[in-house]
Amino acid sequence: MKCDRLRLYVVLDRELSRGRGLSHVTELALAGGAGVIQLRGKTWSGLELYREAVALGPLVKSYGALLIINDRVDVALAVQADGVHVGQEDLPAEAVRRLLAPRGVLGVSVGSLEEARAAAKVADYVSVGPVFPTATKPDAGPSVGLDLLRHVAAAVGVPVLAIGGIHAGNVQGCVQAGAAGVAVVSAVVAADDPEEAAAAILRAGWRDAGAGQGCR
Amino acid sequence: MKCDRLRLYVVLDRELSRGRGLSHVTELALAGGAGVIQLRGKTWSGLELYREAVALGPLVKSYGALLIINDRVDVALAVQADGVHVGQEDLPAEAVRRLLAPRGVLGVSVGSLEEARAAAKVADYVSVGPVFPTATKPDAGPSVGLDLLRHVAAAVGVPVLAIGGIHAGNVQGCVQAGAAGVAVVSAVVAADDPEEAAAAILRAGWRDAGAGQGCR
Repeated sequence: MKCDRLRLYVVLDRELSRGRGLSHVTELALAGGAGVIQLRGKTWSGLELYREAVALGPLVKSYGALLIINDRVDVALAVQADGVHVGQEDLPAEAVRRLLAPRGVLGVSVGSLEEARAAAKVADYVSVGPVFPTATKPDAGPSVGLDLLRHVAAAVGVPVLAIGGIHAGNVQGCVQAGAAGVAVVSAVVAADDPEEAAAAILRAGWRDAGAGQGCR
Repeated sequence: MKCDRLRLYVVLDRELSRGRGLSHVTELALAGGAGVIQLRGKTWSGLELYREAVALGPLVKSYGALLIINDRVDVALAVQADGVHVGQEDLPAEAVRRLLAPRGVLGVSVGSLEEARAAAKVADYVSVGPVFPTATKPDAGPSVGLDLLRHVAAAVGVPVLAIGGIHAGNVQGCVQAGAAGVAVVSAVVAADDPEEAAAAILRAGWRDAGAGQGCR
């Protein structure tokens, strides 16, 4: 996959979108330079997730970005999404790799160097976090800090994303620690202006790139 | 699919199993003649469902019965289960049909004649219910009675299962209304003796068949 798309990876969250529809928030995030959009709906029905993914697909594609479905490989396959992201409590990454065609993007959340090494055998990227404290995902456990991010980035041969409490003010530290990109929820979807919030994160992390320039 | 396997279709439920493991309950149900075992875990993680399905697969196969996964097509594919059962709030049946190989068994829950006709275009069987009042699935809506079962069985070209509040005392009415079989939860998994409970349902519904005889 084109690595620069991973610079800004936006995870959608309906509850945090302040009444704005997910398509609207997605369009703003894409306009601000997001290269990957992840659809997550842990408590949604399969039908709800399917319908939302069908609605988002053409929009995400029109920006040359990737649509990744959280957890539900079947939904991703049904809507021909670009890939799937799984955590350690979802289907095992090896099983997901077999279900996705070789070209499907597979991302795996990791919380330790051991998990990162195992995931990197089959994943196209891994995400490490929560790097900073976050209120978005209360079950995510204590923050792991930049040290684990640095160790994982040095140890694995796939792009590493930082996630958890990331915003324009701390993205540079993540990049310096070796992150290929950052995954954010609140910092974009809950922002007054999601487009500007996305662009600001990209400017802060990659001064040499225009907002979203690397993602098209 | 061999229709007589559908005579007794047992839907597993951990909460109703009275502390007995699902493998134990499954073995008893199979010994009593169940021809299909459905694994359902709406609130479970993908990993939990995957592990349980991996554990049940060889056991169900050893009895010549079918293992059906509720809702999660990806889990079914990952463990090479025999098929998938979806409701009206899950992935659309047409999408599931495409994901399963042609040989994968697809079942669909229907609550009206219209839903039954639509589902029968792609499904291997449909289930109609709740035929009788049931406390097992509080969200299942009011019972539809034997009339809908009769109408669906007369209208569609695939086997029809009755579900909802079924036990040895009312199974015969379902069969007379045209059901190819009955799907039960509590009547088997919560029974003092799941094996005898399963066998009793088969005896009551199909007097000419020995317990489980039609399922091997």
